[in-house]
This record gives sequence, structure tokens and C-alpha cells, in this order.
Amino acid sequence: MKKAVVLLSGGIDSTTTAAIAKNEGYVVYCISFDYGQRHLIELRAAREIAAKIDAKEHMIVNIDMRKIGGSALTSSLDVPKGRFEKKIAQNIPITYVPARNTIFLSYSLAWAEVLLASDIFIGVNAVDYSGYPDCRPEYIGAFENMANLSIKSAVEGKIKIKIHTPIINLSKAEIIRKGIELGVDYSMTHSCYDPTDDGKACGFCDSCELRRKGFRQAGVPDPTIYVNG
Amino acid sequence: MKKAVVLLSGGIDSTTTAAIAKNEGYVVYCISFDYGQRHLIELRAAREIAAKIDAKEHMIVNIDMRKIGGSALTSSLDVPKGRFEKKIAQNIPITYVPARNTIFLSYSLAWAEVLLASDIFIGVNAVDYSGYPDCRPEYIGAFENMANLSIKSAVEGKIKIKIHTPIINLSKAEIIRKGIELGVDYSMTHSCYDPTDDGKACGFCDSCELRRKGFRQAGVPDPTIYVNG
Repeated sequence: MKKAVVLLSGGIDSTTTAAIAKNEGYVVYCISFDYGQRHLIELRAAREIAAKIDAKEHMIVNIDMRKIGGSALTSSLDVPKGRFEKKIAQNIPITYVPARNTIFLSYSLAWAEVLLASDIFIGVNAVDYSGYPDCRPEYIGAFENMANLSIKSAVEGKIKIKIHTPIINLSKAEIIRKGIELGVDYSMTHSCYDPTDDGKACGFCDSCELRRKGFRQAGVPDPTIYVNG
Repeated sequence: MKKAVVLLSGGIDSTTTAAIAKNEGYVVYCISFDYGQRHLIELRAAREIAAKIDAKEHMIVNIDMRKIGGSALTSSLDVPKGRFEKKIAQNIPITYVPARNTIFLSYSLAWAEVLLASDIFIGVNAVDYSGYPDCRPEYIGAFENMANLSIKSAVEGKIKIKIHTPIINLSKAEIIRKGIELGVDYSMTHSCYDPTDDGKACGFCDSCELRRKGFRQAGVPDPTIYVNG
């Protein structure tokens, strides 16, 4: 059985990506990161989703990104609200976390080597996304190239790292339709950057905006409970 | 003043690299990693060295590598002793830590972006080294390429990441001579993979072997206190 390391945040994109890996016949090893994000509720969602898709293991790595700072998601800056879609097209929002995917993929690479797994799945998306540079195909290709020069098992030819990005070119609506096809229960997923303590989504951050639009365009009822209905 | 992030482990190579960065006129930001290594004594050395070279900041990042495993340095495997130099030429020893430099450089990259620093210094060495793949120039070049596609400030043209490896082609003896020239006090540095509780070096692990040979060949008295004299 082929093994795959799957980055799982508990949102729509990574959950759909995990379902795709599973559907392609991989034994799935999920990895999530507790990086001082405000929305620890994400990790609860990730745990439930990993169990639901019958992941072989689910590793939660604690990382120290608050110390490095530089982002609204890991520091005390306010998460911006409002008509975010326009802003997304123009520049990179302050919810960007410096080198986040590079750090996440580096840990995933280390685990892949220990498991002797060649395949890493990440739910980056370059269509309905927040403009982060580390979601683009040229970045992913450069990481893959570096990865195969970095680790012993690749240099010795035992594995060859392939970074799979099965949803990179899909719109949010297409991602949701794909997930529904594969039996994903999106009520288990979490997207909001700034949820209430009892887990309701704010409805206004860019992540909520993208999520709402996705369900609307997919023609699928949105199971999310938003503060503003 | 130009800022540089310098990876500092507290050993000969990174300490010499930090002295080189300082000598080139950079304001130095040192970063060290507490990754569950057995030799926490390394971090004590790093702290003293950062203070000695007047680093602007010294960040110690706690990372969770024990959970991932796969190495004698982060798990309960025994550190091998003996005539290691022969072994080094043939294969990669079990003191290898999966994706270690990739993880370290990823955090350094995140911090460089927050500081808006283009320059990262790492004391990798491809001559008198332990055969780790992530010490080779082709790996470093691939990381640099990936880094510039990964972060917002590079994509926006505000900084351009350069990974400096000033000692990559020097022998251990040449590194030591270079450091002496720059006023490095090597009695502050630590190399041993398996020191005693009171900080004596074992004298037998591959790191001790390389260190002893370096001082011998440099014709410089070795300030290290070894268990076996």
C-alpha cells in the first residue's frame, strides 16, 4: 500500500485534498500544526476529519510561530473584515504568515522520510485564494526540487518526493463539488479566521467570504453556522 | 546597516560563520533550535557566543522533532562511536536528522521576512562533514530558489534572499584558522554529540573526531576538555 503524508488544517481545501488522496488508494498520514493560530478550533476539526477518513496516523506538531510574528493570524494584529474579495486580487493580506507553507512542508518532508513515503498532498489553491505566494505552482515545483536534494532517502534513490496539489487549479465551487462526490461532510470543516468561542464563523473575514461564495456557486447548501446568519 | 539571520548551533562551523557575517559588517540576528537534541549544552554555548559577538537578537525556537523521530540525535538510538571517518566517506550516519536544515532554514526564512533581511548565513560544510545531503551546494541553491518564490517580500521585490555558506568549501582546519584570525574563542564552542552531564566531550563520536582532527591539522591547541584526555 502506498503511503501519503497529507497536510490537514481542517478547512475545505485540505479536507477535500485528504479525500482525494484516500480515493486514489493511499494510506493516509495526516499532519496538522498548532502554530499559535487564534483558531484552535481548526485543530479540533482536523482531528475529527482525520478519524472520519480513517487516517493511519494523525500527527499534530506544535510550532513556535508566534515568536517570529509578522501576521494577524499569529500575533495580536486584528483580522481584517469586510469586502475582502477586491483586496485579495490586489495584494497579499496581513493574514499571510511568513514562510508558513515552507515550514509546514518541511516538517511533512521529515515525516515522509521517516515513513519512507514519496507522496505529500497539500491543498493549496491558486484560484479562489488569498494571494499568498506559497500557494502557486512555481513555488510548489521549487519546493519539490529542493526536497529531493535535501533528504537521505531521496539522494539514495529509495523514495522520490512528489508534492501533490490536486485542487490547485479548481475554483472553490469545483472543490466543494469534488468533495461532495467523494462523500466529504463539510459541516465538519472550519474556515473562519476569527470564530466565536462557541465555534460560530464570523461571516466577514476573507476566509468566510471565500467559503460562502464557494457554496453559493456550487449550488450546495452551506452547512456553516455564521454569526450573521 | 545590513541585517543578517545567522543559524547558530554553538559548534565550530556556525560560530565561525557568525564571526564572518559580523566581520562583513552585518547586524547579526542569531537563531538557534531546541529540537529535543541530547546535547542541550549546545544551546548554552550558542547563548554565550551570541552575547560575545554582540548579536542584535538571539531567538531560540523550540521545535518538535522528537515526535517525528528517525535519528540518533532526537530519539533513543545510540550515538555511534569509533573510527568514524571511514564510515563518513561511505554513507550517511544515523546521527542524520531528517530534513533538519530544511526545517531550520524555513524558520530562518520566516524571521528574515519579518526583519526584511535578505541575508541568511548557515555554516554548512561539504568537506570535513558527516555526509548529510543538506550540506551540499546544490541543496543550498535549490533552497534559495524556493525561498524567493515562497515569501511575500521577495515576490514583491522588497528583499532577495541569499543563503550565504562562507565555509562550505573549507576544511575543518581552514575553518579554525579563519576563526582564530577573526578572534573566535573556540573554548566557548561545543561539538560533541554525547557529552557528559558536566559538559565534557566524549572524544569518540564523529563530531569529536572531526573537531580533534581539525585542531591537529590547523596546528592550533584544542581547548576542548575530552573525557579521554
